[in-house]
Order: sequence, then structure tokens, then C-alpha cells
Amino acid sequence: MTLKLEASERSAALADLGARKWSEVEGRDAITKKFKFKDFVEAWGFMSRAAIVAEKMNHHPEWSNVYNRVEITLTTHDAGGLSALDVELANELDVLSGWNT
Amino acid sequence: MTLKLEASERSAALADLGARKWSEVEGRDAITKKFKFKDFVEAWGFMSRAAIVAEKMNHHPEWSNVYNRVEITLTTHDAGGLSALDVELANELDVLSGWNT
Repeated sequence: MTLKLEASERSAALADLGARKWSEVEGRDAITKKFKFKDFVEAWGFMSRAAIVAEKMNHHPEWSNVYNRVEITLTTHDAGGLSALDVELANELDVLSGWNT
Repeated sequence: MTLKLEASERSAALADLGARKWSEVEGRDAITKKFKFKDFVEAWGFMSRAAIVAEKMNHHPEWSNVYNRVEITLTTHDAGGLSALDVELANELDVLSGWNT
């Protein structure tokens, strides 16, 4: 069972993630970020790498794609909000994206 | 340049697609359908096949995924609404999905 981040962990994580363009979702204990790539193939390449990482973590994003854009929301349903898994997956996604935004 | 469907083509296509659970999007000239799979890997397998077909057609879906669910919206931005490409892609997606809904 994954636990929600405690208040101090949460604010430290959000400060760090905020600096990398992750933002809090209004009305939900979740974070979101928009990624932009050169074209669909580049966006899809990112999503394919991310899909494998997510499946290995057994922690999956809520995400949408329109051509070269990918919007990702992370939360931990079991925990009822942000957990360490979301922070870990956000970190991985930033690296996998090649820091495209 | 892809042209929007004419009125008679459009209603014939929507009747056919409607029978396969595609519905019109409120406020947009677009169609949408929700697909449900056994798990993330099955959903992702469908999306991967669909991504290749879409790229070959040079016609891309607006789509979102949450674990085993995939929601797809089709419209032709260049044409300002539904075109024959959307009907063709919808038909392909139904086949590729293994008719999962």
C-alpha cells in the first residue's frame, strides 16, 4: 500500500517539480505537465518509453496526446493523492522526454 | 486537402458508426468512442497498433488513456470537421481494438 506524501515531503516535492513545470491540478491531489515534441513520431516515442517504465513501476499515468503534444496527470488512486510513486514517475518522465516541454 | 463530409455522406457515416458506439461530440464536428481493455498492456497494445496506422494515414487521433481505458476523438482539423479520413480511421480502430468496448 502506497501512502500519500506527508505535508513536508509534499511541499518539498512540489517545489522541486514546480521548477520543472509540473503544476498542481485544481480540485485534485494530482500534478500535471504538458510536453511538446517535434511531431507525432517523437511524441509517440516518448509515450512508448514511458509506457514501459510505468508498467514496470505498476504505476500508470493519466495522459492524452494530440499530434505532437502530450499532457500527463499523475496521482495515486490507492493512496487518494500524491505519493512517492508520482514523484518518481514524474522524475522518470522528465528524463525520458529529453526535457521537451 | 481533405474535404468535410457532405450532409448525406455524413448522416450515412454517423448511422453506421453509431451502431458501433461512436457518438458525436457536443459542440464540435467530431466523433468519440471509449474503449476498455483487460489491463494497461492490452490498452497500450491497441494504442501502439493504432499509432502506426494513424501515422501512415497522416491522420492522428486526439486520445487519452487511463490504465485499461482509451478514449478517442476524431476530427479533421484541416477540413474543419468530419471527413472521410475520420470514418476510415474509426473503421481501422474498431478492427485494431479487437472490438473491445
